[in-house]
Amino acid sequence: MQFQISEELIKQVKHLIQTESDDNLRSMLNEIHFADVAEILGELSLSKATYLIKLLDSEKTSEALMELEEDFRERILENLSAKEIAEELEEMDSDDAADIVAELPDDRAEEVIAKIEDEKRAEDIKELLSYGEDTAGGLMAKELVKVKETWTVAGCVREMRQQAEKVTRVHSIYVVDKEGKLKGRLSLKDLLTAPAKAHISDVYIRKVDYVDVDTEGEEVARIMQKYDLEAIPVTDRDGILVGRVTIDDIVDFIKDEAEKDYQLAAGISQDVEADDSVWQLTRARLPWLILGLFGGLGSVFIMEGYEEALAQYKELFFFTPLIAAMAGNVGVQSSAIIVQGLANDVVKGSLFNRLIKEISLSLISGVTLGILVIIFGLLDGMELIFSFTIAVSMLFVIIVAALIGTFVPIILDKKGIDPAIATGPFITTSNDIFGIFLFFSIAKLILGF
Amino acid sequence: MQFQISEELIKQVKHLIQTESDDNLRSMLNEIHFADVAEILGELSLSKATYLIKLLDSEKTSEALMELEEDFRERILENLSAKEIAEELEEMDSDDAADIVAELPDDRAEEVIAKIEDEKRAEDIKELLSYGEDTAGGLMAKELVKVKETWTVAGCVREMRQQAEKVTRVHSIYVVDKEGKLKGRLSLKDLLTAPAKAHISDVYIRKVDYVDVDTEGEEVARIMQKYDLEAIPVTDRDGILVGRVTIDDIVDFIKDEAEKDYQLAAGISQDVEADDSVWQLTRARLPWLILGLFGGLGSVFIMEGYEEALAQYKELFFFTPLIAAMAGNVGVQSSAIIVQGLANDVVKGSLFNRLIKEISLSLISGVTLGILVIIFGLLDGMELIFSFTIAVSMLFVIIVAALIGTFVPIILDKKGIDPAIATGPFITTSNDIFGIFLFFSIAKLILGF
Repeated sequence: MQFQISEELIKQVKHLIQTESDDNLRSMLNEIHFADVAEILGELSLSKATYLIKLLDSEKTSEALMELEEDFRERILENLSAKEIAEELEEMDSDDAADIVAELPDDRAEEVIAKIEDEKRAEDIKELLSYGEDTAGGLMAKELVKVKETWTVAGCVREMRQQAEKVTRVHSIYVVDKEGKLKGRLSLKDLLTAPAKAHISDVYIRKVDYVDVDTEGEEVARIMQKYDLEAIPVTDRDGILVGRVTIDDIVDFIKDEAEKDYQLAAGISQDVEADDSVWQLTRARLPWLILGLFGGLGSVFIMEGYEEALAQYKELFFFTPLIAAMAGNVGVQSSAIIVQGLANDVVKGSLFNRLIKEISLSLISGVTLGILVIIFGLLDGMELIFSFTIAVSMLFVIIVAALIGTFVPIILDKKGIDPAIATGPFITTSNDIFGIFLFFSIAKLILGF
Repeated sequence: MQFQISEELIKQVKHLIQTESDDNLRSMLNEIHFADVAEILGELSLSKATYLIKLLDSEKTSEALMELEEDFRERILENLSAKEIAEELEEMDSDDAADIVAELPDDRAEEVIAKIEDEKRAEDIKELLSYGEDTAGGLMAKELVKVKETWTVAGCVREMRQQAEKVTRVHSIYVVDKEGKLKGRLSLKDLLTAPAKAHISDVYIRKVDYVDVDTEGEEVARIMQKYDLEAIPVTDRDGILVGRVTIDDIVDFIKDEAEKDYQLAAGISQDVEADDSVWQLTRARLPWLILGLFGGLGSVFIMEGYEEALAQYKELFFFTPLIAAMAGNVGVQSSAIIVQGLANDVVKGSLFNRLIKEISLSLISGVTLGILVIIFGLLDGMELIFSFTIAVSMLFVIIVAALIGTFVPIILDKKGIDPAIATGPFITTSNDIFGIFLFFSIAKLILGF
């Protein structure tokens, strides 16, 4: 049933813009959901997209603007006057408006805020900009429905009708005292079913989950998920109700966090997308490659140190990429599980038990892989003592790699550093060097070169 | 403000269970949110947790059960009678109840369903079980508020009060025709503000997003995110309204999908957690390690083929872990960006442009890294022609690795295979072999051995 943006439709829009058929464009696009308008804008050139934004009602375009890629939006905004941007902002929810202003250069941001006619709105935006980006204050919107505990249900319904006009979705009605301190909440359902003459103080729910403006975004997401909340009120440091965070912002937040972790694990250090410029992508990727290069050069050094074994045991050197790959793979597996476990708070029990578990795990995998190496050695015509040496060294490398993969994230986490940094290239690189060093040390011990 | 589960509290609960102080336990735990009760249960032994589940009201425990780890929940359910499970199910939302039944062994599931007193509820559960797990039908709940388009607003409010009792949260009121076909929706806000005598047909919104029971979960998530929906109605194949999917289920779905992708990228093939058994973890990890082992053995073969170069150019062999690491890292970076781009639908433009982009990217990175290798060579006392050879070969390896990392996921996606499989060990292993082969081929060409 979903609306599908066809190439046909895009062509038609482009044609209508070229012929400046404004009425046709308006009647055509006003029927369409803003998220679809955003998709259409994304398919147009900058000048055509700007043309459409200027043409259509701010009511529609303001929401569509929010859905666009940040880069594209910025370039469109560069083509709008401060007044035009201010008009878009007046139609947005306050949290979205603040996000847009935050993307503008400082002097332009001031100019835009000065052009906002609704003073309350301008103040709200300034307030929201004063909080940290990843805090409840930075995520919240100012729009909400609040009532005083002394009111009657009938008075409350009257007041609510008025306030609700400005609020896209009413999840809960918040109850405050004379000073504006958060006291509890009331569902619309409760309001519908309560007698009209009852006082709010008789019907409202006194238990209400809330966060304060300084609560970290991650913590807000955790609480909202744990308690299955669709909105959570936000108070200032004195308990005064100042805003609310809604679940759709949290959905975006969760997605962003997951994508960042995924990219970190793949060795990409900034939030980039497939369609970003070559320069942006290089900046995000090159540092990790340089780290990997130094790791590889470390291995070169180690092997130079064992050069004297080359004549008799050249096959050892053929196995180094295999050893490095095993150390890397095992390390990434262990660290990924621990990093995820730490994020979901399921890493329990003593460190000693975890040690035993990782060692058992690596023993099972290492012995299995070792047997396969010995079978390969027999088929390849290697001496048994030689393939045995490789299997045993590999077993030790796997155990140590698993321990590094497990305990580096745990230690980082205990020190308050994001353990997600310790997956991907970081763990593969350190395990590569360490694995190759261990491999040659053990081989030397057994073969005695 | 959040409730914090202290060790003190857990101790106290354990003590109260041991002394069978049922009244104290009830009065203490009835005050606590079900999500916190779930956390307490998770800290108890199986027998103590079962004791609490049997003691407390089903109203509280049914929701707490849903929050527990699946394994622990299964073991608790094994200790409950079919009748006791049926009682828990009667208190749950239908989608949660169906999920629980799906976890039970077949014969026990039938037994439990037979013990459910509410026949409508039993039927709902059976219906939900008939849909695929990852479809709208499998995600939806049967609870919703629906009204007929011929009713008046006043009649609708009356009916709604009755229906809403069974529905935890009312997002929208759905409007259906005589046959039950979905016609549109109405917000509670609209209902509050419409005149009592108006007919629903005069006030409802005819545009409503919906999915049908067979729509894939991923598509449901995409639509709900794109259009910022908090609930979406689900129809059967004839357009009859049969349920609704709410955003909290989608949040869980998004998180699960992100975790699966993350694990796939790390070479973990099943949904495992840090606290799963050694055996479960081995089953999820070992297959990827075996794949890596075969890749490593492939490199051994390739190097055996270049054995004659060993005497003169032994340093080439010292560089193989570095080449393998570069090929792997670049491949993982490229594939991660493409896999994420495909998931977010931002991979646009022609394949040729993408080719040019990846090649430019790898040229920049490859030349930078090559210069570093030459500098290292100078410091390490290598011949210039030799370090130059390594730098040039590495440049080619990086370009090819980036192309493999980019186009393998794109091809898989075009063929309808989940491109997420093509990150991590898969791309590192294939790039290892390919990189080492290419490295020696180019070195041979330049050095002529």
